[in-house]
Amino acid sequence: MQTASLIITCKDVKGIILKVTSFLYNLGANVIDLEQHIEDDTFFMRIEWDLKDFKLNKEEFAEEFSEIKNKYEINSILDYKIEKKKIALFCSKELHCLLDIINRKNIDELDIEIAFVASNFTKAEELVSKFDIPFYHVKKGENQEKELLEALGKHKVDCVGLARYMKILSEDFLIKANLPIINVHHSFLPSFIGAKPYDEAYARGVKIIGATAHYVTKELDQGQIIEQEILRINHGNSINELKTLGRKCEKEAFAVALKKHLENKIVVYKNRTIIFN
Amino acid sequence: MQTASLIITCKDVKGIILKVTSFLYNLGANVIDLEQHIEDDTFFMRIEWDLKDFKLNKEEFAEEFSEIKNKYEINSILDYKIEKKKIALFCSKELHCLLDIINRKNIDELDIEIAFVASNFTKAEELVSKFDIPFYHVKKGENQEKELLEALGKHKVDCVGLARYMKILSEDFLIKANLPIINVHHSFLPSFIGAKPYDEAYARGVKIIGATAHYVTKELDQGQIIEQEILRINHGNSINELKTLGRKCEKEAFAVALKKHLENKIVVYKNRTIIFN
Amino acid sequence: MQTASLIITCKDVKGIILKVTSFLYNLGANVIDLEQHIEDDTFFMRIEWDLKDFKLNKEEFAEEFSEIKNKYEINSILDYKIEKKKIALFCSKELHCLLDIINRKNIDELDIEIAFVASNFTKAEELVSKFDIPFYHVKKGENQEKELLEALGKHKVDCVGLARYMKILSEDFLIKANLPIINVHHSFLPSFIGAKPYDEAYARGVKIIGATAHYVTKELDQGQIIEQEILRINHGNSINELKTLGRKCEKEAFAVALKKHLENKIVVYKNRTIIFN
Amino acid sequence: MQTASLIITCKDVKGIILKVTSFLYNLGANVIDLEQHIEDDTFFMRIEWDLKDFKLNKEEFAEEFSEIKNKYEINSILDYKIEKKKIALFCSKELHCLLDIINRKNIDELDIEIAFVASNFTKAEELVSKFDIPFYHVKKGENQEKELLEALGKHKVDCVGLARYMKILSEDFLIKANLPIINVHHSFLPSFIGAKPYDEAYARGVKIIGATAHYVTKELDQGQIIEQEILRINHGNSINELKTLGRKCEKEAFAVALKKHLENKIVVYKNRTIIFN
Repeated sequence: MQTASLIITCKDVKGIILKVTSFLYNLGANVIDLEQHIEDDTFFMRIEWDLKDFKLNKEEFAEEFSEIKNKYEINSILDYKIEKKKIALFCSKELHCLLDIINRKNIDELDIEIAFVASNFTKAEELVSKFDIPFYHVKKGENQEKELLEALGKHKVDCVGLARYMKILSEDFLIKANLPIINVHHSFLPSFIGAKPYDEAYARGVKIIGATAHYVTKELDQGQIIEQEILRINHGNSINELKTLGRKCEKEAFAVALKKHLENKIVVYKNRTIIFN
Repeated sequence: MQTASLIITCKDVKGIILKVTSFLYNLGANVIDLEQHIEDDTFFMRIEWDLKDFKLNKEEFAEEFSEIKNKYEINSILDYKIEKKKIALFCSKELHCLLDIINRKNIDELDIEIAFVASNFTKAEELVSKFDIPFYHVKKGENQEKELLEALGKHKVDCVGLARYMKILSEDFLIKANLPIINVHHSFLPSFIGAKPYDEAYARGVKIIGATAHYVTKELDQGQIIEQEILRINHGNSINELKTLGRKCEKEAFAVALKKHLENKIVVYKNRTIIFN
Repeated sequence: MQTASLIITCKDVKGIILKVTSFLYNLGANVIDLEQHIEDDTFFMRIEWDLKDFKLNKEEFAEEFSEIKNKYEINSILDYKIEKKKIALFCSKELHCLLDIINRKNIDELDIEIAFVASNFTKAEELVSKFDIPFYHVKKGENQEKELLEALGKHKVDCVGLARYMKILSEDFLIKANLPIINVHHSFLPSFIGAKPYDEAYARGVKIIGATAHYVTKELDQGQIIEQEILRINHGNSINELKTLGRKCEKEAFAVALKKHLENKIVVYKNRTIIFN
Repeated sequence: MQTASLIITCKDVKGIILKVTSFLYNLGANVIDLEQHIEDDTFFMRIEWDLKDFKLNKEEFAEEFSEIKNKYEINSILDYKIEKKKIALFCSKELHCLLDIINRKNIDELDIEIAFVASNFTKAEELVSKFDIPFYHVKKGENQEKELLEALGKHKVDCVGLARYMKILSEDFLIKANLPIINVHHSFLPSFIGAKPYDEAYARGVKIIGATAHYVTKELDQGQIIEQEILRINHGNSINELKTLGRKCEKEAFAVALKKHLENKIVVYKNRTIIFN
């Protein structure tokens, strides 16, 4: 089934659900999913409908919807689920998240196209090449981000996934890339920001560790959290064991976050994410 | 805020959301929650609205809504959240679930009235009396269910909670009581039906145990599941430790299930529960 | 069964297990539990043995064991499980942790005596009095900690539990009390230190919240972590819902931590806890 | 570090720990791990020691230890961790568990050699060949198990993993293979034995699904449970979603079980597994 989804955010006024649903109904939409949320007098809604019998394509929809949009001062995100979404994955030396996404793609669990993989190391190259995915080795140095941007320019992607990419992306890069970027951080944020969270978790003696997938913003590890996973540990687990055990959380949080994003099920509000089912 | 909630179940037809929301809108309702679900071509929706500015009381609503109800062959559950819900709790020798509900009531976590407690043992009597809750000792024997029915007749309750009540209620009792009854079973159903689930769990060597809150139907432990809780165990846990550890799951599953039911957030469909947020 | 338990910490040298087990064996001990842990070239072991047939009482043991203790430079914690442990509980306005411990005591899940409850509010008094537990109202002001110390002086307790006691205890108090003090903090430490963790968790948009039971040290919320509990939330949960949902974690973490401590199953090492099974 | 590990099971007699540790000590062993467990008057212990300075190789150990073994009627499992363990993986159409194990091997999370993959379908062949792992297509029919046995005869493996292999292995095969075989079943056993557990879980309306890794015995899905994983679902998850979500549990339970087995950390007792840390 081909569907379209629309997320709207606006002031909570009486009758807004009615307004939007009648707009869609009159254009032939059969609503298959509707979820709403109210917070701080702000109204959020995601509607998904069957495109069969629906009269408008994506461009026409934007135009037709503009009257309601302007009247209610709506922010909206519109998606037509017609083609596979394309993503780029950046990685460093730890390859478990990268390989997990490749696997999920290969068994059609993630219905995506991996446009390319880029890394500041060559370690992933051989594995990636087995799956005929273009690989870019972006060496340390002043051209590193430029090379990433060139790769992004060449392959039109819908979003970038940082699959344990251990370089901080500059604000300049984020502006030029102008794409949603999802990172997986190997701690239960906001605990243990920075490069060595498992060492810190060990030293603090926590009894549960975790991982966090979040949007990348200019502040390190401060972006809006999309998904978190945790697991129970005990005093007997060494730092190395934490690193190995934690991969379970990292893989899962990263894959779930990418999936939710690509299904147009996330809207950001005040540094929080509203995630529709 | 005083609110009303309506759960509807009907055939999934185009425009049903529109129909119901415009009905409510025209009567002055400000919708504060709307959740829908589609399954097997059947449509489920729960709407909750602010009663301020709403023109109908509960009886009037039923009457006004009957036209839509009949036209779309809707099954509906309507609730006006105006007074505290009243419950009865039945227990036996294990008192942790009973005490947990009393505590939650005492700290206003559960906004309920405990109309009475009944038990086939006297063990709970002293504790219950500390909280000025009427207690009925229903002795073993042919009058046991009759006495329970008399207590239910005297105190008008909205539902009955079986807080580890270890007697099977007869089909006759269920018909006469004619009330929703929620039981907590001390296993992760459908595993380990019956009286000694922790012994069976130990013997089978499972690595996770759990508890299940479900509606009571005439088949033992076969009712619709409302909530399940689990926890990880290991070979070192004796049967007695399982019993103690498992209480955590039992208390939580039971309290969550009662809360969801009393908030009119559950609809039963084909031996499954659809539970709204 | 009456048992004794011994926790030892020393440099990891060949034969240390042998040395201690043969010492116990020669005195008639039947070892029923032995667990060891090695970290940073430091050796930790907990042994528990049946006191039937064992030749020494607690004082005699300390003396007889001193030769090995001195030779291997062992730190040890010895406990004879003969009498019920006594605890004091301090609380403020939130009573769920307090009531949960009282319940667990009443159903013999915690084999303890609650010597007294103290609070900077009077809210708990009525509930506590139902269970014939002495209650001390320690009013805000310069005498507050003095009154707590007086209560502790009067009732000889083995440890103090801070059941959501929302006053910071001074370093001076900690020194004078000279008792293990276990606090439950309503966040997943080290995230959200301080007085309003649920508000902060909401604002940060985390997808999982938690609670942490830890020993109290002079730095706020920096003590050694004993137990953590978490639960998954979503964007739809308001701050108030987080506070209610989180109680589940607080109650469980607090009760587990107290139990482990009173069973002599915790040893502190470098701001971490080693917790034996 | 090269180590050896010994698991012993015998009647619980006073001094058994002492006996075994002094035996090892006298042969130069530096014990790095010791864990014991008592159940039904039966004693279980796993000891691991550094092979540096240890005087005996595997064959010599077996001989030297025989006196104690006979005297105390000990069942023992001895392992020298010197070479990589070799495993065979059987699969059918669902490849996520297979790919997950290959990934874990490739990033050295599992320190194993995958001797070969066999399947009753050809679907895995291309993927497996990318990693230079021998592949056997064992076609449906009377020779299927014979071909599996031939592959096992050719490659000497330490154990077999059934990575969602959907054919039941005959008792005759199990006897002839004479190897530990670990299966992952896609339900939380003992719930939903058989071929379609997700369909059954959906129909029963459970709120939590899971997966179970267990040893294969002649009774279907009745073998000793090694590891279980679960995850929370809701009414909105279709059967297909359950199948996809459940993979997370299947992959994790399977990988953990294989790892524990290959590290000689499991002993079977009365249809339960005792799993050392």
